Amino acid sequence: MSQTQNPDNQDPGPTGITAPRGFAAAGVPAGLKSTGANDVVVVRNLGPSRAAAAVFTSNRVAAAPVLYSRQVIGDGRADAVVLNSGGANACTGAEGFANTHRTAEYAAGLLGISAADVLVASTGLIGMQLPMDKLLPGVQRAVDALDTTAEAGLAAATGIMTTDTVPKQAVRRGAGYTIGGIAKGAGMLAPGLATMLVVLTTDAQLPAAQLDAALRAATAASFDRADSDGCMSTNDTVALLASGASGETPDTGEFTALLTELCQELARALIDDAEGAEHTIEVRTVNAASEADALEVSRAVSRSNLVKTAIFGRDPNWGRVLSEVGTTAAAFEPDQLNVSINGVMVCRAGSVGEDRDLVDLEQRQVLIEIDLNAGTEQAAILTNDLTHAYVHENSAYSS
Amino acid sequence: MSQTQNPDNQDPGPTGITAPRGFAAAGVPAGLKSTGANDVVVVRNLGPSRAAAAVFTSNRVAAAPVLYSRQVIGDGRADAVVLNSGGANACTGAEGFANTHRTAEYAAGLLGISAADVLVASTGLIGMQLPMDKLLPGVQRAVDALDTTAEAGLAAATGIMTTDTVPKQAVRRGAGYTIGGIAKGAGMLAPGLATMLVVLTTDAQLPAAQLDAALRAATAASFDRADSDGCMSTNDTVALLASGASGETPDTGEFTALLTELCQELARALIDDAEGAEHTIEVRTVNAASEADALEVSRAVSRSNLVKTAIFGRDPNWGRVLSEVGTTAAAFEPDQLNVSINGVMVCRAGSVGEDRDLVDLEQRQVLIEIDLNAGTEQAAILTNDLTHAYVHENSAYSS
Repeated sequence: MSQTQNPDNQDPGPTGITAPRGFAAAGVPAGLKSTGANDVVVVRNLGPSRAAAAVFTSNRVAAAPVLYSRQVIGDGRADAVVLNSGGANACTGAEGFANTHRTAEYAAGLLGISAADVLVASTGLIGMQLPMDKLLPGVQRAVDALDTTAEAGLAAATGIMTTDTVPKQAVRRGAGYTIGGIAKGAGMLAPGLATMLVVLTTDAQLPAAQLDAALRAATAASFDRADSDGCMSTNDTVALLASGASGETPDTGEFTALLTELCQELARALIDDAEGAEHTIEVRTVNAASEADALEVSRAVSRSNLVKTAIFGRDPNWGRVLSEVGTTAAAFEPDQLNVSINGVMVCRAGSVGEDRDLVDLEQRQVLIEIDLNAGTEQAAILTNDLTHAYVHENSAYSS
Repeated sequence: MSQTQNPDNQDPGPTGITAPRGFAAAGVPAGLKSTGANDVVVVRNLGPSRAAAAVFTSNRVAAAPVLYSRQVIGDGRADAVVLNSGGANACTGAEGFANTHRTAEYAAGLLGISAADVLVASTGLIGMQLPMDKLLPGVQRAVDALDTTAEAGLAAATGIMTTDTVPKQAVRRGAGYTIGGIAKGAGMLAPGLATMLVVLTTDAQLPAAQLDAALRAATAASFDRADSDGCMSTNDTVALLASGASGETPDTGEFTALLTELCQELARALIDDAEGAEHTIEVRTVNAASEADALEVSRAVSRSNLVKTAIFGRDPNWGRVLSEVGTTAAAFEPDQLNVSINGVMVCRAGSVGEDRDLVDLEQRQVLIEIDLNAGTEQAAILTNDLTHAYVHENSAYSS
């Protein structure tokens, strides 16, 4: 993909959701967060197209904005997204749903569009009503502040943060078109999807059905493979809006590949900034009989508190890895399993391998590679270590 | 069950594996543990019957002693059990299996029995060979020390401890017969079974097939419902030996009920002493459409790091409970879920209920009750909170 600009090169140009043409954004403080930080965000698709797609949490206890937005996206069109941090509006009953509806109608009135074309997303504490007397004035100020600048995009990226320590933005450039994105994550991160709000924008000209297919493929290979703490949220939302402002209609395969790359960058950024984590751990399973086997093994290992505390303690404890592999239904023989940690094969043929003292676990990035010796397929899950800071953040504060 | 003696009453008499007639036990220090504590245990069935049953980890990466003992128990007979702490003999390849075999043969030679009737169980660090030059002399000393006293039973209970802080023993008395038991647990506790070694003895006269049925029923309702950290071990073994020394052949249903009660007491003792835990949490799901639904919901909630850290932080965070319920396939409607924590219904009809400040989480025992409003079945899982001490124990030390 020669047209793909690698973000590691110098100056990738503007990033985030206002990098593609045809989008305005804003993030403002409305007092939902006690800190006075940005907490209400509006993203507007300026067109000419309003095609859109979205994927949501598969949690059956879904927040009011998820229930509402599922209806909105039904016709493949979204003109705007209203997001707030400082309150999840989950487990809030009929009043919570009415508040989401009211938020969409209020924003629609200000923007001169239909409430049926306004996606709503919320994040924060479950089980409390949103303070509408603060939220609606915030929506008003955000609509007034809508702008197509990089600064406006960054304000939106900061406005959806909860326990995130840095805003997450990304961009990918195709042949004549651009895809941008913002994301928030930090805690309650587990697939199907991780606890996240993500807004993706593109100026490519694509119909809703193709956007939907591309988005599902991209999230399956990115956010669905990020698993911070095994806990699935009630609010996960990933929305993709296409303005068509570039006039370009890219090849679907190329667009999907580029979108996947961007989503993978954002997914890694979420795990790199997960609550209290000191290590980002890639659990890669190779030589599996099927990709499903590889995923099952990687997911089991990535959810082991004993593996995660061992990595926190800089202990290449491969026995804890093997004991998790043994809980799966994947095809393998116990005496043919190899495990490498950061390139050192500490377990060979299901037993003691290289000296574990050779493993360096001081750097942030850790690779645990499990060789099932049962086929040719592979897959990876991104997770992080389990630390004192995680326990502290999640016991000392409600979230 | 009027013949059942409640252990909460005063003076239940002798406890542990030497309480039933026909059993001798010993626990001695052999230097496998650097602390000098007891680490080699022998339990001998003196007969006249040698009927036995055992259940093992369902982990496909099973330790050498598990692989060996599965063969031993095949004929429903066991004359003795040799156990060691200070090394799991798991992921140790052909050498590890040979060491287990050698241990059984050595003990059998000393006892004048067949190695095919000696169960072996190990616990400790995975992935290192046992120091046979210490283990075998330990077996010799343990055989020399075999005795039918309560003190000998206690020495056996201490000899299987790893990070346990107290020895676990229990007893139940039926009509003319007794059942006793010892257990170790502490970390890597999850069902199917929890990481545990358990030896149960009885002087009832029952054939192996009935012992097997009773043991499977009892463990399914006790150890299989204890889940400390969601991690399944490679070494779990629960063995039941019957000496027939009482001459009593109890009703199978009565025996199973008594055995279940004893296993539940030991399972609770394991969770009460789980690594670093400050709270024992019973997650009970009621009014479920099926017992399987109730178990699935209780298990999902009991494995949530966010629920477990919240309880550690004395935070009755019912939103985290509901978000886990939503990940299950159990029959329920989100707007008909109730959640009570220590008797306070903090979530009613899927939304805000009683004031969460009414919940007292200072005491050790916590009850989270989830009402699915979908039927009449119920089930509970015992778990514990996720604390700084858990992270410390499992990151600072290999295990």
